[in-house]
Amino acid sequence: MKQIDHIAIAVNSLEEALSFYQDTLDLPLLGIEIVHEQGVRVAKVDAGNTHIELLEPLSPDSPVGKFIAQRGQGLHHICFKVSNISQELEVLKSCNMRLINEEPKIGAGGAKIAFIHPKSTNGVLMELSETSY
Amino acid sequence: MKQIDHIAIAVNSLEEALSFYQDTLDLPLLGIEIVHEQGVRVAKVDAGNTHIELLEPLSPDSPVGKFIAQRGQGLHHICFKVSNISQELEVLKSCNMRLINEEPKIGAGGAKIAFIHPKSTNGVLMELSETSY
Repeated sequence: MKQIDHIAIAVNSLEEALSFYQDTLDLPLLGIEIVHEQGVRVAKVDAGNTHIELLEPLSPDSPVGKFIAQRGQGLHHICFKVSNISQELEVLKSCNMRLINEEPKIGAGGAKIAFIHPKSTNGVLMELSETSY
Repeated sequence: MKQIDHIAIAVNSLEEALSFYQDTLDLPLLGIEIVHEQGVRVAKVDAGNTHIELLEPLSPDSPVGKFIAQRGQGLHHICFKVSNISQELEVLKSCNMRLINEEPKIGAGGAKIAFIHPKSTNGVLMELSETSY
């Protein structure tokens, strides 16, 4: 059974964005961490039935930095929680989907993650995540 | 208590997009409806803990048609379910947020809805929705 693990939003500044999500929308901040491999500082916010992840680029030439330079701040990707990521990737390969990660890699919090290329998903960057919790 | 009612994705063709969401990702299709006021045909897909709404423009000069022409297919907006939309809009106004709809209007399924302008939300088009169910 899949569900949405998080919705990721590219922002210039976590502090500025959090003044909206935390203070105005009154959503609880769950934590802030730096994910060096993805070149981002991430604020995780509780949106009730799923999480919102605010992504602040660590540098302009990181993927999220380039995204903001090209398209501006905004919705960046959605992440599905799956129970068996290797099996999901096999299904996607058998459907000739273009994958950014052919094999799972380790993401924030030790989750196994992989990204599907937007070319295969009607323009939506999509992450799969398998966590042990 | 807020939660994400749906994630909306602008697509050229519902049928093409559904072949991915329904057949490849194995998410149940909940229904398809035309919302003339927004100029879209909408397919609602069950993503476990929230819904995904695929938006196909009824014409190129509709808001979603223009979005696709400018930015391509992709993530369009997110919608928060709220218990009292009038109260939420008052809070947003008191925080000097720019609103597309100052007062709630009636959307798909009879919900009271209003959009917040992306200028006030770090580039994210955001909908609020109050439903009776």
